[in-house]
Amino acid sequence: MTLEPVLAIIEISAIVVFAISGLIEAVRKRMDVVGVFAVAFVTAFGGGTLRDVLLDRRPLFWVQHQEYVWLVLVLTLVGLPLLRVFRHQCVDRVMQATDALGLGLFAVSGASLALAAGMPLIVVALMGVITGVFGGVLRDVLCNEIPVVFHDHRPYALCAFCGCWVFIGLDFVGAAAWQALLAGAGIAAGLRLLVLALNWRIPSWPRSGEN
Amino acid sequence: MTLEPVLAIIEISAIVVFAISGLIEAVRKRMDVVGVFAVAFVTAFGGGTLRDVLLDRRPLFWVQHQEYVWLVLVLTLVGLPLLRVFRHQCVDRVMQATDALGLGLFAVSGASLALAAGMPLIVVALMGVITGVFGGVLRDVLCNEIPVVFHDHRPYALCAFCGCWVFIGLDFVGAAAWQALLAGAGIAAGLRLLVLALNWRIPSWPRSGEN
Amino acid sequence: MTLEPVLAIIEISAIVVFAISGLIEAVRKRMDVVGVFAVAFVTAFGGGTLRDVLLDRRPLFWVQHQEYVWLVLVLTLVGLPLLRVFRHQCVDRVMQATDALGLGLFAVSGASLALAAGMPLIVVALMGVITGVFGGVLRDVLCNEIPVVFHDHRPYALCAFCGCWVFIGLDFVGAAAWQALLAGAGIAAGLRLLVLALNWRIPSWPRSGEN
Repeated sequence: MTLEPVLAIIEISAIVVFAISGLIEAVRKRMDVVGVFAVAFVTAFGGGTLRDVLLDRRPLFWVQHQEYVWLVLVLTLVGLPLLRVFRHQCVDRVMQATDALGLGLFAVSGASLALAAGMPLIVVALMGVITGVFGGVLRDVLCNEIPVVFHDHRPYALCAFCGCWVFIGLDFVGAAAWQALLAGAGIAAGLRLLVLALNWRIPSWPRSGEN
Repeated sequence: MTLEPVLAIIEISAIVVFAISGLIEAVRKRMDVVGVFAVAFVTAFGGGTLRDVLLDRRPLFWVQHQEYVWLVLVLTLVGLPLLRVFRHQCVDRVMQATDALGLGLFAVSGASLALAAGMPLIVVALMGVITGVFGGVLRDVLCNEIPVVFHDHRPYALCAFCGCWVFIGLDFVGAAAWQALLAGAGIAAGLRLLVLALNWRIPSWPRSGEN
Repeated sequence: MTLEPVLAIIEISAIVVFAISGLIEAVRKRMDVVGVFAVAFVTAFGGGTLRDVLLDRRPLFWVQHQEYVWLVLVLTLVGLPLLRVFRHQCVDRVMQATDALGLGLFAVSGASLALAAGMPLIVVALMGVITGVFGGVLRDVLCNEIPVVFHDHRPYALCAFCGCWVFIGLDFVGAAAWQALLAGAGIAAGLRLLVLALNWRIPSWPRSGEN
């Protein structure tokens, strides 16, 4: 089918962007090359790995596609010149767009695996969000920070959540798999880009729980 | 059997209390609604999920009971008025008691699953403690704190450990499953309440390991 | 075979040294006895457990060898006098050597399990490194620190990585299992000892990623 190579390109771009976000964070924390690789690796593959462990799927995503492991390894080694390039403003925009596309694609592909495994719908949506988001959560845990996705106030996981429900809904009404997938990923990515463009924020949680 | 609904009520109450403890911690860290839900979810289900992954049990606890996922979701959305109520002193007491009961119930149910899986007895007791305690550990890791259960000095995991051994012992001498379960959970919960009432503390570890 | 008892002795020594490194870190953080045990346990068994979960192997390493669980439990209880002894300089040297041997042994044994499971070679090497290194990573996460292995700049994971490739290479050219295992573990341990003796460092990563 003609869709496959497009999806593969989005997937690889998303892995590169996720890995670079790990790389940047690890360099900021003054890690050495081992730490930089580990954090980049966990950021790129952590969400999918957690999903596979929770769903008991083997082989893991990155075992099946060992070329992705090599990709992150090479990225780590050539990371410095890359980071120089990536500091330019316009590249920042490209990264945000790719990150949004990757979020949508990862989330919906995670949801479709959970659906195929016969999970209840709320679990399907959660697995999608976990796939898209938990790489970043684990990156922040390894970097000794509170996960940014938990306190950023600009919807990120919520966009993935909406995209997953769109996917579930289209699948329910009998749409073709690729239609549901594209629409779900598109909605998630589009919402995320809208959030960034319009600077939408979740209202701050009132601090009634404070000591 | 007439015991089932009682256990179900204790279980649901424990999940609510665990989730609320996550909610309080997440709000304290200024997380947004996504973070609050994630931390509440992990606090409520993290221990059972880790146990299921280590024992290779599927479907996971919260996949089998998807209503519990909805429960935590609703809790997060109505959390603010709840937190206002929960600041009252008397409610604090109710939460401590429910938390103690939940600790006992989770620990002994975890132990019984490990026993049924044919684990060695020390592993059975550890799985029980992990089930009861690791939700809180993961909550603290996500909130970028040292797990409170590791340095509180007021026995918590130890109460669960004792309850598990009571359960194992009664099972060994041939008691009925519900007797062993009730006695184990009761001992764990009772010990925990005694700890809080009498302010028992584990003696401080001497600091000979300091630099 | 005459090799078995030697390997068993190295393995037990490595578990003791790994557990003690967890113990020292937990005591430094003022944890109580529960925290000290938990951190010692996770340091000793975390790497192997993560490998077993990723490879979907059951029973877990420490379920199969429940005597190792007891060993860590006893270590925790008698830890104080031990720590007094372990502050002496010469013991420090012994610990470093044992840690290097344990790193090599754990890494190569992890790699051999991954190889037997039919993983691609890069995954085999990674699983070896994870087995050797992730106990320490999880220790540092529980202690709310950035994992020391990620920013120490003295190669540790890299030594394990080299050892794993030696093992893979010898296995590929048809060496006997024990030869490949011994050579791989020996190279990893020897490299690590060289690193410490000569104070080798990975060049600092340039800070171009800084804000």
